[in-house]
Amino acid sequence: MRDVLEALARGELTVDDAAAALAAAPTAAAAAAPASLDLGHTTLDLDRASRTGDPEVVFAQGKSVTQLEDIARAFAASGEPLLVTRLAADKATAMRALLPDAVYAEEAQLLHWRALTPDSVDRIAIVAAGTSDHAVAEEARLTCEFYGQQTLPINDVGVAGIHRLFARLEEIRSARVVIVVAGMEGALPSVVGGLVSVPVIAVPTSVGYGAAFGGLAALLGMLNTCASGVSVVNIDNGFGAGYLATLINRR
Amino acid sequence: MRDVLEALARGELTVDDAAAALAAAPTAAAAAAPASLDLGHTTLDLDRASRTGDPEVVFAQGKSVTQLEDIARAFAASGEPLLVTRLAADKATAMRALLPDAVYAEEAQLLHWRALTPDSVDRIAIVAAGTSDHAVAEEARLTCEFYGQQTLPINDVGVAGIHRLFARLEEIRSARVVIVVAGMEGALPSVVGGLVSVPVIAVPTSVGYGAAFGGLAALLGMLNTCASGVSVVNIDNGFGAGYLATLINRR
Amino acid sequence: MRDVLEALARGELTVDDAAAALAAAPTAAAAAAPASLDLGHTTLDLDRASRTGDPEVVFAQGKSVTQLEDIARAFAASGEPLLVTRLAADKATAMRALLPDAVYAEEAQLLHWRALTPDSVDRIAIVAAGTSDHAVAEEARLTCEFYGQQTLPINDVGVAGIHRLFARLEEIRSARVVIVVAGMEGALPSVVGGLVSVPVIAVPTSVGYGAAFGGLAALLGMLNTCASGVSVVNIDNGFGAGYLATLINRR
Amino acid sequence: MRDVLEALARGELTVDDAAAALAAAPTAAAAAAPASLDLGHTTLDLDRASRTGDPEVVFAQGKSVTQLEDIARAFAASGEPLLVTRLAADKATAMRALLPDAVYAEEAQLLHWRALTPDSVDRIAIVAAGTSDHAVAEEARLTCEFYGQQTLPINDVGVAGIHRLFARLEEIRSARVVIVVAGMEGALPSVVGGLVSVPVIAVPTSVGYGAAFGGLAALLGMLNTCASGVSVVNIDNGFGAGYLATLINRR
Amino acid sequence: MRDVLEALARGELTVDDAAAALAAAPTAAAAAAPASLDLGHTTLDLDRASRTGDPEVVFAQGKSVTQLEDIARAFAASGEPLLVTRLAADKATAMRALLPDAVYAEEAQLLHWRALTPDSVDRIAIVAAGTSDHAVAEEARLTCEFYGQQTLPINDVGVAGIHRLFARLEEIRSARVVIVVAGMEGALPSVVGGLVSVPVIAVPTSVGYGAAFGGLAALLGMLNTCASGVSVVNIDNGFGAGYLATLINRR
Amino acid sequence: MRDVLEALARGELTVDDAAAALAAAPTAAAAAAPASLDLGHTTLDLDRASRTGDPEVVFAQGKSVTQLEDIARAFAASGEPLLVTRLAADKATAMRALLPDAVYAEEAQLLHWRALTPDSVDRIAIVAAGTSDHAVAEEARLTCEFYGQQTLPINDVGVAGIHRLFARLEEIRSARVVIVVAGMEGALPSVVGGLVSVPVIAVPTSVGYGAAFGGLAALLGMLNTCASGVSVVNIDNGFGAGYLATLINRR
Amino acid sequence: MRDVLEALARGELTVDDAAAALAAAPTAAAAAAPASLDLGHTTLDLDRASRTGDPEVVFAQGKSVTQLEDIARAFAASGEPLLVTRLAADKATAMRALLPDAVYAEEAQLLHWRALTPDSVDRIAIVAAGTSDHAVAEEARLTCEFYGQQTLPINDVGVAGIHRLFARLEEIRSARVVIVVAGMEGALPSVVGGLVSVPVIAVPTSVGYGAAFGGLAALLGMLNTCASGVSVVNIDNGFGAGYLATLINRR
Amino acid sequence: MRDVLEALARGELTVDDAAAALAAAPTAAAAAAPASLDLGHTTLDLDRASRTGDPEVVFAQGKSVTQLEDIARAFAASGEPLLVTRLAADKATAMRALLPDAVYAEEAQLLHWRALTPDSVDRIAIVAAGTSDHAVAEEARLTCEFYGQQTLPINDVGVAGIHRLFARLEEIRSARVVIVVAGMEGALPSVVGGLVSVPVIAVPTSVGYGAAFGGLAALLGMLNTCASGVSVVNIDNGFGAGYLATLINRR
Repeated sequence: MRDVLEALARGELTVDDAAAALAAAPTAAAAAAPASLDLGHTTLDLDRASRTGDPEVVFAQGKSVTQLEDIARAFAASGEPLLVTRLAADKATAMRALLPDAVYAEEAQLLHWRALTPDSVDRIAIVAAGTSDHAVAEEARLTCEFYGQQTLPINDVGVAGIHRLFARLEEIRSARVVIVVAGMEGALPSVVGGLVSVPVIAVPTSVGYGAAFGGLAALLGMLNTCASGVSVVNIDNGFGAGYLATLINRR
Repeated sequence: MRDVLEALARGELTVDDAAAALAAAPTAAAAAAPASLDLGHTTLDLDRASRTGDPEVVFAQGKSVTQLEDIARAFAASGEPLLVTRLAADKATAMRALLPDAVYAEEAQLLHWRALTPDSVDRIAIVAAGTSDHAVAEEARLTCEFYGQQTLPINDVGVAGIHRLFARLEEIRSARVVIVVAGMEGALPSVVGGLVSVPVIAVPTSVGYGAAFGGLAALLGMLNTCASGVSVVNIDNGFGAGYLATLINRR
Repeated sequence: MRDVLEALARGELTVDDAAAALAAAPTAAAAAAPASLDLGHTTLDLDRASRTGDPEVVFAQGKSVTQLEDIARAFAASGEPLLVTRLAADKATAMRALLPDAVYAEEAQLLHWRALTPDSVDRIAIVAAGTSDHAVAEEARLTCEFYGQQTLPINDVGVAGIHRLFARLEEIRSARVVIVVAGMEGALPSVVGGLVSVPVIAVPTSVGYGAAFGGLAALLGMLNTCASGVSVVNIDNGFGAGYLATLINRR
Repeated sequence: MRDVLEALARGELTVDDAAAALAAAPTAAAAAAPASLDLGHTTLDLDRASRTGDPEVVFAQGKSVTQLEDIARAFAASGEPLLVTRLAADKATAMRALLPDAVYAEEAQLLHWRALTPDSVDRIAIVAAGTSDHAVAEEARLTCEFYGQQTLPINDVGVAGIHRLFARLEEIRSARVVIVVAGMEGALPSVVGGLVSVPVIAVPTSVGYGAAFGGLAALLGMLNTCASGVSVVNIDNGFGAGYLATLINRR
Repeated sequence: MRDVLEALARGELTVDDAAAALAAAPTAAAAAAPASLDLGHTTLDLDRASRTGDPEVVFAQGKSVTQLEDIARAFAASGEPLLVTRLAADKATAMRALLPDAVYAEEAQLLHWRALTPDSVDRIAIVAAGTSDHAVAEEARLTCEFYGQQTLPINDVGVAGIHRLFARLEEIRSARVVIVVAGMEGALPSVVGGLVSVPVIAVPTSVGYGAAFGGLAALLGMLNTCASGVSVVNIDNGFGAGYLATLINRR
Repeated sequence: MRDVLEALARGELTVDDAAAALAAAPTAAAAAAPASLDLGHTTLDLDRASRTGDPEVVFAQGKSVTQLEDIARAFAASGEPLLVTRLAADKATAMRALLPDAVYAEEAQLLHWRALTPDSVDRIAIVAAGTSDHAVAEEARLTCEFYGQQTLPINDVGVAGIHRLFARLEEIRSARVVIVVAGMEGALPSVVGGLVSVPVIAVPTSVGYGAAFGGLAALLGMLNTCASGVSVVNIDNGFGAGYLATLINRR
Repeated sequence: MRDVLEALARGELTVDDAAAALAAAPTAAAAAAPASLDLGHTTLDLDRASRTGDPEVVFAQGKSVTQLEDIARAFAASGEPLLVTRLAADKATAMRALLPDAVYAEEAQLLHWRALTPDSVDRIAIVAAGTSDHAVAEEARLTCEFYGQQTLPINDVGVAGIHRLFARLEEIRSARVVIVVAGMEGALPSVVGGLVSVPVIAVPTSVGYGAAFGGLAALLGMLNTCASGVSVVNIDNGFGAGYLATLINRR
Repeated sequence: MRDVLEALARGELTVDDAAAALAAAPTAAAAAAPASLDLGHTTLDLDRASRTGDPEVVFAQGKSVTQLEDIARAFAASGEPLLVTRLAADKATAMRALLPDAVYAEEAQLLHWRALTPDSVDRIAIVAAGTSDHAVAEEARLTCEFYGQQTLPINDVGVAGIHRLFARLEEIRSARVVIVVAGMEGALPSVVGGLVSVPVIAVPTSVGYGAAFGGLAALLGMLNTCASGVSVVNIDNGFGAGYLATLINRR
């Protein structure tokens, strides 16, 4: 693109010719996109946090230790904040050797480094149906907190003992957005959705057996909720819920 | 079988030989089974009500008007009680011409003739989540009543407005067994199951759209319920729930 | 409940007894819930708009003309705002006879009466991939507008001709929340999600054929999006997306 | 709630005001619910057996040894009965160290402590199709017996050798409720359902291979049974069947 | 091919060259295949019955009246036997106008013309579970009879009233091969398979509702049968079962 | 039953009374069924081979070493032939310690002891598509041979190199029945079915990856075959195909 | 964009500033994209044929007559070539009223106007398995011909009578690319793929019944083909196959 | 065949008789097919590369070390080129011991020996969405290069950061055919397909979690692409895509 602009500035091209040249290159603007750091296997957007306020997030599942170490080194060099999800304990050890003050939460399989300064006014409630849904709820909570959000975690309030939910209802109602994490039949978001008047983000978990089919039952239940104001993310996607809640809570 | 017994009585066979002869015919006992009325297309057990207390039930879907008229004539002749399910209005008209005092409920697609005398002590609650689940709930209710059961119908108390359910909870708790009918995410049986201490029969309905997949979402939700004491029948199977509730409530 | 309170006020009950009496009735608070109007088939919350700001919504699919007319009469009497979704044209005619100034949008199968006063500061962008997704996008748009939200509809910008999307990107980026409606492979929310920094609500549609399986392909695509900040509602659920966007945009 | 009642008793509130205050707190009744023991990860209802006759049940799958030890300690302290399902042998060892006289059945993966006193009049038949279904049948049997029910276990009577079933039929007919456990095609409940006149609870198992799809074939078969009086619980859910049978058999 | 052979016969080619020429043309043998009649849309093998004993079969579903008339004319001209399956009544009328003495069975949607001379020694039993499975059983029966087989049709002997099956067991055991037709849970082939010692061909039907999923439940049930000696054809494929039974019974 | 017969023989019962007594006991004939050996976990039919010619078959998957040893001991004591399928190598070692001259085929996971004397006139062809389908084909072949059948194994003739199939076609055509084993798209039975005029038993295998979905693709392909005379058994069910082929080939 | 360029040309901006301005507008290049014609509901790229050689294609399914008439008018005005797929006969009539010399093929549901001049050197073979697959094959053929390709249609050569395929093999081998259209088990592409050494495009069709599941069986079969050089398009997507074949054949 | 030809050459047969003899043997041509090397378990076509230019490919998954060693020995003896896919590292070691200069790529699980001489004029672009898709992309790339094609690998350009794709677009457009590898929602082929005018081969990968269902979401997305010119191969089938791209690029 620069070549065209310089030719235009030198008067070697007319405005029409320059426009045509750029039009012929629909990737011109793309070429002006933020210069990424290409590690061969991964393209990192290192200054994303500085530029947009939202740091780069790395999904560790399926990446090798070597690749993750490359990524850790790049962030150690840049000093930018980093969030890593789905990170097994052994890989976390390797990354923390290069990012010494990084924090790793094993249950949530999540590592973060240089989390954003807390600045949210409202809170994000994170409501989990059962003990077994706790890990996914933690992934959501730590994601929110990494992005500077205040959270309100509420555990083991599944619909089969609904008095446990009512006992916490006032607290839940005080939040700006509610994340509801549930496996098995995934009914909790429908009940919560009918009791609050803020957005509800439903996270199905793979908790269950038999006809739970790895979270499919909970997923279908949540998609078919009869409550209004509820949307759904992928099975076990605590990060996705936390990030979306952050976007909703931000202003 | 009779031949063997008579030969034995006449002393022409030893007990050993007679036992062997019968053992060689594993269908012997079956041959002694109640003499059914064979209509060619259908085998009716006309004296079932007299013999067992439970009348014959006819599933009308997929049967022709001619076949249903044959059945109606057989019952008109025998005078035995009859329940017909999944019966379209036009076919009902044909049957009622032959069974004049039969009662047809169009919404429930159910015809009954000579219902059993009411005699139940306890009640069967039939709880429906939404207006659209009403037809299936009616099939269940009319089935129960045909078998002489008292019922308690409670409609439109879905989980998205859970105060509607609580407003009726005392009534529901007074029943010996609860049928819960729900489409969409099918969450109502889980909530009810956690609030009562009697058997809950969950009936998924095909109400919903998109990822409801014709009742599959509700079915999976109910099978994966986190509440104890809940079992499930086929999608839209109001009759099955009503008959099972009758068996539970009977003693 | 009132009986207990009055007995307590009259000194006929101790505080302990009164607490026990209420504790024994877990439905006590529920009994104090807003007095609904019970139409037999449907329980309406007529003063919901006055009380909470959010009017009652009626899902018309599976309801009979008679039931819908009962509902229309109840609202005509109360004068409260009403939104009806999935309403076929012939049923709309029946309702409009009773709610003369109601507005019906046939493509979106949506009727509204006495929409809320527009008061949103920010806009909700509603981006549709193809011509065939238009009806669902309209359901979303009209829902938002009924709730007093400003909208920005952008049509026919599917990923196969991605320059169409870029041509509208600045507009889309000006919104507080983006609804993306797409059928077939459902790829548009992933692309949009990577280009904006606000919440994205993805609506899969049943548009497509063959292995689209009634919207399943688009639904799975959206749930598995590699973009952050995206959540999903049920197939063809334009209302759900519009209502959720309203909740997000409201404050 | 107590504050409101006391203010009313002191005459500081009118009955109207008190009613309004409680109505404004829809969780008031919930607050009066049984005080649970909150372990952080799990909320236990320790006095449930004393209060309702039904002890608390813990689903161990997905819980850590530490969490299970916390639970064991709480019950050891309270002395209340406890049933733990889906408990692996190593975790059972840890719990038994804290609940010394607990009984662990490895095949059924079930631990119980202080089972209820046997008091049932009628029996629950537990009919298993094949050797491989035995573990699930045992989970059902031990659940029933924990709740004080008499059981009648009958094994290896699958439909492919139907004389085995007929040889036990009189016994089965003597029960008040029948649990039928079967994998593969799951046909046994249909046959049994046609031969008895009591409720049948069908439990599909994940036994089989190929197109059994982890119990899906058996599950679908049972849901579509042509026999009346049959309902279904989740795949491999022996506990659910046993508890439901208890509820049916109880009165 | 003929050219090569003639050149070889004339001595213009060596055997090596001729072999090479044929080897280079892997379709050579195919070219020697029976000369089909190409109707443009369909390629008929008109002399198949004369040559192999098995007449051509035409699957009518998805073929237009015009195409079927072309086929009828070709057979009218050749005088060869013809079987047409899945033929709607209106199309049958069109074909019979050209094949006047053809026989059409509307329930089975099957037309046959010049059926083979009956010559089988043993019989093929065709056992149907319910009235609604009758049409598929008829398709199987008429197929067998068209191919000259003796049949033994037995209807309405589903597993929920298993005495009906035992009453006919001796007859069924007299057959050389048994076709079992069943919808819903498809359990009948398992029971029959355990009672006979000849091959059983299971035909799932699309009879049922809800979780029957158009015959899928019956199909999976039959594939997972615990009985030996059972195999399965496609849902509603009465023709396939009848033809296969013919092949088994033939020698 | 014997009691009734003896009373009749002693003249203490009339023939009518005796008939009624037996009719009242529908399990009477069942009681006369072959006395099985009940091992607690498994009911064995030890003299089945002597009585019917077909030995008992044990499906080992899901059975413990202890259970299998019990079974081995029972057969060692009775001396009757035995076939065990899906038997892992370590369990086979345990069984062979008790049945010293038993033969174990590890690839096919099959053990047999005292196979029947070969006596078939015709052959059973066993055609496998690829190297990876070999284990299932071997299970089928060894099953046939255990039952005294002659076999014709033909390997690695998949449709992608169809000349390999044609090279063996004459041999295949010499068989009385053909078993075709194939994974991936499962197309081989369709091609073979069009080339032979004997029954074809199709066995889908779980060979493949991705959208093979554990054999589902092959299974669906085979069920939908456009060739006549083909039926299907469960995925990887080599035994089922071998046993069925035996029944077809026997007479 | 033009504004920036003119400012740069006038010397009012430095090259750096101009680059930054464009970089700040990632849609700048998009703005230079071909000016589409926005019909409100549809955005047409009218001069696409002139510019790229490939005319615009309109997918008519789900579009109203009014929308299609708008499109027809736009093309009538521009004179550019047009291809419309999935067009019902009544809608075709409406479009042809505005594009009088357009050609409509009812079986293929395809309309074309001003097809490209034929110019291909090689041929595209279009091989269909059965008569019922003909409509999809025609959609593929007419698409190819619209784009100026020579085609070689070959019908009714399914694998169950494989000699029909061999009889046409030399012709098929003469093509540069082969489209294979098949329903039911979809085995034909595997066989063809093993016999040719050019790209094969497989098109599953929804032809079949029962476990064909609307083309799913054929689709899975084709995806799992054991032949190399085969890829798959959506069920019934004749257009997609024809267009792709054109791209392959073009050079 | 040779016998017939020699008899004809000797005049012992007429041309008619010879034609009939060959026609009676439809496998005649097949018998003239290339003499394969039969290893018992596998039939190799060793001179395929010499004869057709395309070497034999071996799919290693499911083959034992012994079988692979047999294959390696056969190729070592013949000296023909060989490609082995899905080869685990330990098996590769065994093969390389016999084919010392073979090259093994562990990430791609692919071994090649004596690759073809590079001779392509145009390039094949291989575009991968994410780091986790790299292994499949490598399988495709190495396959292309084994067959002598030039490749252009482009990694980590998924749609969530679409500027990364635009930055490489000119390069991609320079290719004759584009392979696009993507997991999760599989949206990249739709975007690429809309930006290029050459064939696109889409490869879904099993990358993802939850509702990705092992690549099903990506597969369905790609099959439903709204872009023209895109076809799909099996999940993770990098080899298939590479071979097909080779066929397209060859001329």
